[in-house]
Amino acid sequence: MKQRDDADYGRLIVQGADRPGIVASVSGILTEHGANIVSLDQSSSDPSGGRFFQRSVFHLPDLSAKLESLNEALEAKLGEELGLQFRLVEAKRRKRVAIFVSKADHCLLDLLWRQRDGELGIDIPMVVSNHSDLSDDVRGFGIPFFHVPVEKGNKAAAEKEQLNLLKGNVDLVVLARYMQILSGDFLEEVGVPVINIHHSFLPAFMGASPYQRAKERGVKLVGATAHYVTEDLDEGPIIEQDVIRVSHDESVRELQRKGADVERLVLSRAVAWHCEDRVIRDGNTTVVF
Amino acid sequence: MKQRDDADYGRLIVQGADRPGIVASVSGILTEHGANIVSLDQSSSDPSGGRFFQRSVFHLPDLSAKLESLNEALEAKLGEELGLQFRLVEAKRRKRVAIFVSKADHCLLDLLWRQRDGELGIDIPMVVSNHSDLSDDVRGFGIPFFHVPVEKGNKAAAEKEQLNLLKGNVDLVVLARYMQILSGDFLEEVGVPVINIHHSFLPAFMGASPYQRAKERGVKLVGATAHYVTEDLDEGPIIEQDVIRVSHDESVRELQRKGADVERLVLSRAVAWHCEDRVIRDGNTTVVF
Amino acid sequence: MKQRDDADYGRLIVQGADRPGIVASVSGILTEHGANIVSLDQSSSDPSGGRFFQRSVFHLPDLSAKLESLNEALEAKLGEELGLQFRLVEAKRRKRVAIFVSKADHCLLDLLWRQRDGELGIDIPMVVSNHSDLSDDVRGFGIPFFHVPVEKGNKAAAEKEQLNLLKGNVDLVVLARYMQILSGDFLEEVGVPVINIHHSFLPAFMGASPYQRAKERGVKLVGATAHYVTEDLDEGPIIEQDVIRVSHDESVRELQRKGADVERLVLSRAVAWHCEDRVIRDGNTTVVF
Amino acid sequence: MKQRDDADYGRLIVQGADRPGIVASVSGILTEHGANIVSLDQSSSDPSGGRFFQRSVFHLPDLSAKLESLNEALEAKLGEELGLQFRLVEAKRRKRVAIFVSKADHCLLDLLWRQRDGELGIDIPMVVSNHSDLSDDVRGFGIPFFHVPVEKGNKAAAEKEQLNLLKGNVDLVVLARYMQILSGDFLEEVGVPVINIHHSFLPAFMGASPYQRAKERGVKLVGATAHYVTEDLDEGPIIEQDVIRVSHDESVRELQRKGADVERLVLSRAVAWHCEDRVIRDGNTTVVF
Repeated sequence: MKQRDDADYGRLIVQGADRPGIVASVSGILTEHGANIVSLDQSSSDPSGGRFFQRSVFHLPDLSAKLESLNEALEAKLGEELGLQFRLVEAKRRKRVAIFVSKADHCLLDLLWRQRDGELGIDIPMVVSNHSDLSDDVRGFGIPFFHVPVEKGNKAAAEKEQLNLLKGNVDLVVLARYMQILSGDFLEEVGVPVINIHHSFLPAFMGASPYQRAKERGVKLVGATAHYVTEDLDEGPIIEQDVIRVSHDESVRELQRKGADVERLVLSRAVAWHCEDRVIRDGNTTVVF
Repeated sequence: MKQRDDADYGRLIVQGADRPGIVASVSGILTEHGANIVSLDQSSSDPSGGRFFQRSVFHLPDLSAKLESLNEALEAKLGEELGLQFRLVEAKRRKRVAIFVSKADHCLLDLLWRQRDGELGIDIPMVVSNHSDLSDDVRGFGIPFFHVPVEKGNKAAAEKEQLNLLKGNVDLVVLARYMQILSGDFLEEVGVPVINIHHSFLPAFMGASPYQRAKERGVKLVGATAHYVTEDLDEGPIIEQDVIRVSHDESVRELQRKGADVERLVLSRAVAWHCEDRVIRDGNTTVVF
Repeated sequence: MKQRDDADYGRLIVQGADRPGIVASVSGILTEHGANIVSLDQSSSDPSGGRFFQRSVFHLPDLSAKLESLNEALEAKLGEELGLQFRLVEAKRRKRVAIFVSKADHCLLDLLWRQRDGELGIDIPMVVSNHSDLSDDVRGFGIPFFHVPVEKGNKAAAEKEQLNLLKGNVDLVVLARYMQILSGDFLEEVGVPVINIHHSFLPAFMGASPYQRAKERGVKLVGATAHYVTEDLDEGPIIEQDVIRVSHDESVRELQRKGADVERLVLSRAVAWHCEDRVIRDGNTTVVF
Repeated sequence: MKQRDDADYGRLIVQGADRPGIVASVSGILTEHGANIVSLDQSSSDPSGGRFFQRSVFHLPDLSAKLESLNEALEAKLGEELGLQFRLVEAKRRKRVAIFVSKADHCLLDLLWRQRDGELGIDIPMVVSNHSDLSDDVRGFGIPFFHVPVEKGNKAAAEKEQLNLLKGNVDLVVLARYMQILSGDFLEEVGVPVINIHHSFLPAFMGASPYQRAKERGVKLVGATAHYVTEDLDEGPIIEQDVIRVSHDESVRELQRKGADVERLVLSRAVAWHCEDRVIRDGNTTVVF
């Protein structure tokens, strides 16, 4: 089963230089602490000198009380002895996700709806927008909406205001068709991952107006890409992509509508996977378990 | 029904500036000549001042004998009066297709099988290769194989030899993973359309080594694109595209294998559609009925 | 372009026994009345003695004023002379659609969003439910919500109440996960088409609990089917279907969630296509242009 | 990386009743023997009282020499102590696969071609057919072809002849559109798994003529299903399925052609996955890692 969100489930993410015995070490420590591994995915880019990635989900009665000692044991063995990075997470700790939007509502509403339905297992403490158009929709879901206008010349001030809202309150920022470019300073300051949805199957049609350019180029598929945001626009590690077939008979507006269906599916999958700790960054790419 | 290849079926392709009354004119002429339109697709980029495209399939007893008079009537009405371009084709006239290959066999064999199975409705008078590796495979299908080496410095001579083989003998050239760039002179001289299969979902990963670059970029889909060849490499009008999902766990070699399945499907569809006169070029794009 | 909803666009749907000259007759009449055919799809099940289907979209300045005379001309030629059925529709006349729901909200909300976004080109005069759970959501969109409980023994009375709400007010009823079976009497009385979304790729898993049965059978794909409702449960003409890949690792609840994404896409496409007069019933199947 | 077929790679498949500590036991034994686990997939139907499935790929220098002792250690711990079933396999031991065919060649040729290309990592010691049509094709690949006619009344004798060919010589039988039903006695006698490709997305259109019935039912997707053969026709555990979109405009013959493309992809995936020990039977379903 993919989702385990009861009280006593934990997740352990391990990554680092591959070497023999990592799996045995990890499973040994978990077993010694009384945990039962219910799901385990592992990948190795190359067994000789490659990179190692692992995600385990385990059941451990009274997990919260044992978390610290388990963490210490993992730090001693995995961290100090084997030189690996790891993250230990309680499944019941829901990620706090801020959503940034502009005027398009399809990705936003899809996320709000899935969250209300219990599908995402996240909390959404705020929606931030550079426009006020979607405030009623957001507040109708019982979620705070903050209007932070971004006009020419005030971007730095706007980002500062955004950071004040975010700092300490969120574990993830999702750009759900937010039509402003975030500065490198913002990305550094915010201290949590930022996921964006780009409306093309990257690396095709990087930059602006992808549907217009897709129409002009006569492609037979349009798509969407969810990726982590880095300073290099549209270059960050890809989490998920999908496409839909289009024909010569469809206008740019119709490509946008079809593409919007792909965008919301792709973004919601990326957010769900990230928040279930399924996505591991590996340089400019990702491992998705 | 999509395919009509009995003796008395014809196809009429019309394109040009849109204006009222084209459909009535076309169907009027066909009906007056005793034809029954069994399938008709039409598209208009914009009813006011846009471009018009139409493909009709019709049944006309004793078509061969009536072809010339039908053509004259169409020329008078559509050509001279309405200023449209048209093509009138007997469905029983199979297109003669030359296939160019290098060493990879998957696209070639797929076309040869489909042709043997009667699926494509084409003739394949020759396969031309810059290597001799696939000669036995091709001749096993009873098809002539010509080895025309292309080495540094002799490209012009090689193209001349290829043109000698092709001129007057073929209606289409298909580059089924032919790893040489054809010169602008060749494309002009050959006088028939040339279709290429590119091993990425263009415009992503134009140029060489698309699977290697797909792996490095961490995309979640790999694909293939069949397009008409123009002097601008990988820029010609796209006929068909498709993609397949890949994961972080697959090597470049595995992406190539998965991609090969997409390449052969996409190329065979593009060849079939072209040879059924379903593809109309519209500047740098295509209309596919 | 697929959608034409300006004032002066019309749609003409023709079906009946195939015979030579239908296209010429139709396009002749349209042209004589000053119409420009901007899109035309036609299909013929068999040119000798088969069935003929055609959908034209045309532009005719001042269409409303000319509708009656055009209709008379079509009736004389197509109806009386050629024995064909036809429908002449103004594109600007939006279909009035009633949505029936129970407790699941995903298909309902998807339709309401798309309608609000202008994507569907329909009016939704009412939502009818056998539960009251979704009343706030519906009224939040400014749409009347009617709660008509259906309990054991009162079904006939409930259907009568539903019919009172519907009669004269709607052109289509959409069952967006409405978990009650409508009686044959209701279907006869209501006098408009009824579209249902079934949560499997019919004809697999007809009847109840398709996701549970999909899990037990170990299928690798789950899907959804939109179809016209007939007296034979889950046997009506299929309008649209799609599927999504699932794995052994997903629970029945996870199949339901993935399936829900397919359900809402499939149903929204079916409703859009029906309301654009793209779907023609042909016995137990459909032609979708 | 998915495929590891060098000399020193091994695969360990474990299944049984879930209980805490299995992963630690397995990885402990492997590590003690000097193996490095390069890939590991694990699934548990329910951590309390559910079923456990695991596939590990490991690298162990000089594997062949250590196989016996490793097997003994696993038998003592996993078999006797934990009551689990396991299989230990050397990746370099290629599965020997017999292919059964009738007259249709598409699935056969696809498998032969992939095997020749090195994609499948299998040996094909024989092709067996109830017709002689495909003998030249098969022998052209350098593979023995055996013609075993099956006529009314001689089925038992034919199956005896088939069993004589197979016994001791193969690890898998693949029915690549073999149009005869194998008896329960045959399935019991043959002693190796049998994989079949069914030309529909089971459980829809079980039995004969699925494309004909798909056309009559008006489905919008046709598909194919690869499954293990059991005595209950078309009811065996599903390994892989896929579908392709079709339209009202396609004849039964065209559905067959499109479906053939899906059949060969689905069957080749199922054979590859089986032969890489990725498929674990779980009652009437499968776990595919």
